[in-house]
Amino acid sequence: MTEPLSSLDNTPQSEVPELVRNQLEMLLEHGNLEGAKSLLVPVKAVDIAEAIENLPESMQAIAFRLLSKTEAIDVYEHLDSTVQQTLIEEFKRQEVIEIVEQMSPDDRARLFDELPAKVVRRLLAEMSPKERKQTALLLGYQEDTAGRIMTPEYISLKDSLTVEQALQQIRTQANASEIIYYLYVTDASRHLTGIVSLRDLVLSSPEVLLADIVTREVVSVYTDTDQEEVARLIQRYDLLAIPVIDREQRLVGVVTVDDVIDILEQETTEDIYTLGGVQSDGDNYFQTNLIAVARKRVVWLFVLLLTNTVTGSIIQSQEAVLQQVVALASFIPLLTGTGGNVGAQSSTVVIRGLNTDEIRSLGPGYVIIREAFAGILLGAILGSVATVWSFWLQGSILVSVAVGASLIAIALLASLAGSALPFLFRGLGLDPALMSAPFITTAVDVLGVLIYFYIARLVLGL
Amino acid sequence: MTEPLSSLDNTPQSEVPELVRNQLEMLLEHGNLEGAKSLLVPVKAVDIAEAIENLPESMQAIAFRLLSKTEAIDVYEHLDSTVQQTLIEEFKRQEVIEIVEQMSPDDRARLFDELPAKVVRRLLAEMSPKERKQTALLLGYQEDTAGRIMTPEYISLKDSLTVEQALQQIRTQANASEIIYYLYVTDASRHLTGIVSLRDLVLSSPEVLLADIVTREVVSVYTDTDQEEVARLIQRYDLLAIPVIDREQRLVGVVTVDDVIDILEQETTEDIYTLGGVQSDGDNYFQTNLIAVARKRVVWLFVLLLTNTVTGSIIQSQEAVLQQVVALASFIPLLTGTGGNVGAQSSTVVIRGLNTDEIRSLGPGYVIIREAFAGILLGAILGSVATVWSFWLQGSILVSVAVGASLIAIALLASLAGSALPFLFRGLGLDPALMSAPFITTAVDVLGVLIYFYIARLVLGL
Repeated sequence: MTEPLSSLDNTPQSEVPELVRNQLEMLLEHGNLEGAKSLLVPVKAVDIAEAIENLPESMQAIAFRLLSKTEAIDVYEHLDSTVQQTLIEEFKRQEVIEIVEQMSPDDRARLFDELPAKVVRRLLAEMSPKERKQTALLLGYQEDTAGRIMTPEYISLKDSLTVEQALQQIRTQANASEIIYYLYVTDASRHLTGIVSLRDLVLSSPEVLLADIVTREVVSVYTDTDQEEVARLIQRYDLLAIPVIDREQRLVGVVTVDDVIDILEQETTEDIYTLGGVQSDGDNYFQTNLIAVARKRVVWLFVLLLTNTVTGSIIQSQEAVLQQVVALASFIPLLTGTGGNVGAQSSTVVIRGLNTDEIRSLGPGYVIIREAFAGILLGAILGSVATVWSFWLQGSILVSVAVGASLIAIALLASLAGSALPFLFRGLGLDPALMSAPFITTAVDVLGVLIYFYIARLVLGL
Repeated sequence: MTEPLSSLDNTPQSEVPELVRNQLEMLLEHGNLEGAKSLLVPVKAVDIAEAIENLPESMQAIAFRLLSKTEAIDVYEHLDSTVQQTLIEEFKRQEVIEIVEQMSPDDRARLFDELPAKVVRRLLAEMSPKERKQTALLLGYQEDTAGRIMTPEYISLKDSLTVEQALQQIRTQANASEIIYYLYVTDASRHLTGIVSLRDLVLSSPEVLLADIVTREVVSVYTDTDQEEVARLIQRYDLLAIPVIDREQRLVGVVTVDDVIDILEQETTEDIYTLGGVQSDGDNYFQTNLIAVARKRVVWLFVLLLTNTVTGSIIQSQEAVLQQVVALASFIPLLTGTGGNVGAQSSTVVIRGLNTDEIRSLGPGYVIIREAFAGILLGAILGSVATVWSFWLQGSILVSVAVGASLIAIALLASLAGSALPFLFRGLGLDPALMSAPFITTAVDVLGVLIYFYIARLVLGL
């Protein structure tokens, strides 16, 4: 027997793509195609894909052609959509059709989403009728729904089969199926009536009927279920896959757990971008050009710039007060800044709680009141410190009392706004994450200076 | 055959726990234990767990006792740790031991983490030697490592077996194993030498040797590998599970994909909390008391309060300038606010990129320069608008030029700080997310007023 561990095997897994890329580039530069080929044999498809992506563009197609046909398809599915498109342009028509035909239908639908419509039409026209039909079907569903991300390649069985017959059928269909660990039981009209796991089959005697081991309580989704909900269900019930049915309860596809992990990551990135005031449209931020980057960011900045002008106007309108007690001005950044930060904290925990369903059973009332108390508590702690601190800085008791009292009021208000606005936005059918740190910070600025001047005039008797 | 679909089956999946809880409470109030029992029969363990969590505390133990022994363990594993503890206190010693003995070792280790040390010692003392050993083993690994989250319940085989013998062995061991879709091949000293999937076994002829179908290139992790890295590898290679080996390459456990999804969600929550300036320690924010909430938030607020004081002092030190050109003061919020928001956007995309490894291959230099250009571009757009806008507001060309020029400089600086500081922090071995919106916003305030006054004095010749 040959040595089971290749030379790459002592490398930490995370450095493999980098190492493969460097060796590959060296071998290709020296025209050593055989060496390059054998370098890639033990490497996983996703690592080959990352290595190819990072090669100089002139070498990408050469490297890709080193792969065997089945491997090529695997690698192609893992490539970034920009590299996928470059390769399509480099290849001969026949090569393209062969690869695209063999891709799994859900990956193909994703690729077609990115390609120019003209190219998609041409490719569809040249595909086999069966593959064309499958792809057109998936492309027919709305983006970000179960229909779009499901694979139509699953195994369905009738419950009148014995375990032995079922295993026989699995063997003949396994190659055309993405998942064989769950088998779906359907009736004569393709209605989903139950599920059997390969585990159950392997553990049962050959003569047992499927009807006797099938699980009837199946968690399923509709073709138009949002992909985030699909991901939540797979996560909640610890599933490896979830069946997708149409409105007539007919089984039409399956979403697998590996796709779901990618969806969760993509949705998280979108959430975090929205939290940071960057528009997210599913494109990779670091692969778009600067104009697109500016477009993703500038709208939100404009909104906030206008709001900030309001803060400025309020300060200006209080010029008379500021001229009487000059010391007041220097505490404005402290008050608005702290208020903004308290509000940002509240909105962060509430928005995240809404996204993970963690606060569904608590209800808005409970959460907002709790945050209000947290705001008062934080305001009291910070306000006491600010009172002492501001007295030490400028020596007037009245000014420092005004600062401390304002901080308590602002912290309370910021907590209320930070926790209530996300709920309000969700109620209006908008993304709660829009009410995140950048917006809350700016909104609290406006309200903060109003409160501060009101309290200061009250305390100082102006 | 009985009707396959229960009355709950037309309810959208997400409303099931709520519905079950309500019906359960009603039945228990009327003392209808049999009704309650049959209500729960078709319900999934995780839904029963959520229903029980939301029952009044006095009913929780009663509801839990309705379950059959195997179901009880499943449900118990899904309960929140606070409810798990309440139940432990309510139960008789013997009941507790029975449940804890039957839990899977990784879930048990998680429960023991939460229980008071005294209770853990008592429970460990009463468990069977085998289960005690397994639990103590897991508890011996550092928190958040592969060793802590792995299950020691997997199936390992020798590669001298035939497929038929392997299937035979799987049937006898399946009940004691959390995962049977991957079988691990080990040599005489328990070294991991390969992996066979149940799919491969089912599709191969019975007389084939495992040695002929085994995959030798196995992606594995060490017991001390960070759980986030474990999750990344499972995601990257689309695995259902990943084997865990010790430093001598001996197989000691397996981490499964369902645990990994939960880890990714928990890590995401921690990242988002840090981004929002809330300390995250793995506890559920909404289940901790207000004192703990204040503790999680107040430290960061103090740091920012002090920084904000610096901004105030700078403004105060420029009193002479402000008294000469009063209009300057009203643009401070606009400039610092916009600068803070630009910086927050940059830090958000960079921190997220670092967490998803998306920018690993790009390198800090490229990312920071790109963000700098984005900053100049955004500054130019916003600066032009601000120049016109501020001229319209107060009528002095010089002041409006100072505002516009400052905005460009501040946007550039904010982008640089927002993109460079996360890299710097990671380089220092700290969490890059600490350099997020709240910090960047505050830091840019300080630098922003300095730049503004410098440019204003230059332009206005003061």
